[in-house]
Amino acid sequence: MTRQQLIETIRRKQSFLCVGLDTDIRKMPQHLQNEEDGIFLFNKAIIDATLPYAVAYKPNLAFYEAAGIKGLVQLKKTMDYLHSLEDKAFTIADAKRGDIGNTSQQYAKAFLDPEGDFNFDSMTIAPYMGEDSVTPFTVYDGKWVILLALTSNKGAFDFQFLKTEYDDRNLFEHVLKKSQQWGTPDNMMYVVGATKANMLTTVRDIVPDSFLLVPGVGAQGGSLSEVCRYGLNSDCGLLVNSSRGIIYASNGTDFAQRAAEEAAKLQQQMADELRRIF
Amino acid sequence: MTRQQLIETIRRKQSFLCVGLDTDIRKMPQHLQNEEDGIFLFNKAIIDATLPYAVAYKPNLAFYEAAGIKGLVQLKKTMDYLHSLEDKAFTIADAKRGDIGNTSQQYAKAFLDPEGDFNFDSMTIAPYMGEDSVTPFTVYDGKWVILLALTSNKGAFDFQFLKTEYDDRNLFEHVLKKSQQWGTPDNMMYVVGATKANMLTTVRDIVPDSFLLVPGVGAQGGSLSEVCRYGLNSDCGLLVNSSRGIIYASNGTDFAQRAAEEAAKLQQQMADELRRIF
Repeated sequence: MTRQQLIETIRRKQSFLCVGLDTDIRKMPQHLQNEEDGIFLFNKAIIDATLPYAVAYKPNLAFYEAAGIKGLVQLKKTMDYLHSLEDKAFTIADAKRGDIGNTSQQYAKAFLDPEGDFNFDSMTIAPYMGEDSVTPFTVYDGKWVILLALTSNKGAFDFQFLKTEYDDRNLFEHVLKKSQQWGTPDNMMYVVGATKANMLTTVRDIVPDSFLLVPGVGAQGGSLSEVCRYGLNSDCGLLVNSSRGIIYASNGTDFAQRAAEEAAKLQQQMADELRRIF
Repeated sequence: MTRQQLIETIRRKQSFLCVGLDTDIRKMPQHLQNEEDGIFLFNKAIIDATLPYAVAYKPNLAFYEAAGIKGLVQLKKTMDYLHSLEDKAFTIADAKRGDIGNTSQQYAKAFLDPEGDFNFDSMTIAPYMGEDSVTPFTVYDGKWVILLALTSNKGAFDFQFLKTEYDDRNLFEHVLKKSQQWGTPDNMMYVVGATKANMLTTVRDIVPDSFLLVPGVGAQGGSLSEVCRYGLNSDCGLLVNSSRGIIYASNGTDFAQRAAEEAAKLQQQMADELRRIF
């Protein structure tokens, strides 16, 4: 999906909501836990219920890998289902990969290749190994790198805020600055943790035009209005993710309906915010 | 495999060779490329040929994921085969994962859990997200985190050598130092790229007792004798990886025999080095 198509989708749905499909068998409703295709059936119900309110879906690979090869079959079925829908969503492989150049090429093939099992629009990438670990993900047309800059977890403070020799900037600022040479706002986004919304001003100074994927609204404590105040740009420029707050809103048979309600609430707030710019 | 068992294996085989199973279908001998189980058959032949000379095997996940779900089935068969052998090798999932705490738990389950599809002894982890992204991998008995410190690629110079506010140390030194609080030499190793062997002195100052996984000897340009000069400690403390130099020594029907010859050469050099310490 190109940048223009993504912006069109956001305008049409008046939403920049990303639903995190962190599907954990143990947290699914009881009646799905013993189904052969339980993970897929759960995801399909969540997608059907939330698609009117969401523009993107983000399966976190860890949850599928934890279920072994069977879990990856469930992920493939989920992706096949998303691709089959007329209402196309932006898809994110939350994989946090990154390796030396020839190996990153293999990861890109695994997740982004249109001929591959998954054919995601984008994937999250860790920056530690530098340029040649990142650029192999930018070679597919209409596909995206989403580079980790500032994450929303406690461990973010261990290295991401270290002051570096470059203009006394923090490491995460240097990642944002340096990576401008590796991609453009048409093929590179950044993960920016919402629990530090005030840092979004700093981020926007460095990457005014880039889309930001903001995790951590809801369960991880971020505030949507703060994220919008500091993060919105004239193209929206945000994808705000909610995982647990939506997909585990209920663990009963009403889970999909409750997910739809939570997604609708967020979409309504997002529509209010978008009125400022569109 | 515990540290003591690993050291025993190194003593017994007079080797600290790790064979990187970066198995790329396009580089395998022609006669295996169209076999249903070609990747596994290739790996099995490499393992059978090199096991007398090697103490560890390191499949890089990217190459299996690039072959889709079928590729992961081939990896499972490879791991099942390694587990079935009487001569137990140390196994490394070169996965370079890392995510927020509850998600890293899922990755740990995927690769280290004895009940899971793979049951690796260890896995490589990227440090960017800090403590809670790393510690979930240290909870399984006899299993290891192998944390990226200094990688062997060109992109290593983008961030790993940045001077930080802490004693003017580079980022990779700070990763080594800080992570001492998260594990011990019994459950944490470090990736240290061999193309910068002189940096091993700095590394050994910070982590004198830890095992180091050294990639990049051979194809990536590192020298084994330099690595040993600066990296060996009284328990050996090194696993030196070679991937392409061994597994693609020939792409003809003699590939396994040629792999054995390359592995034997490295083992011979390693035995000479080990005489200094054992």
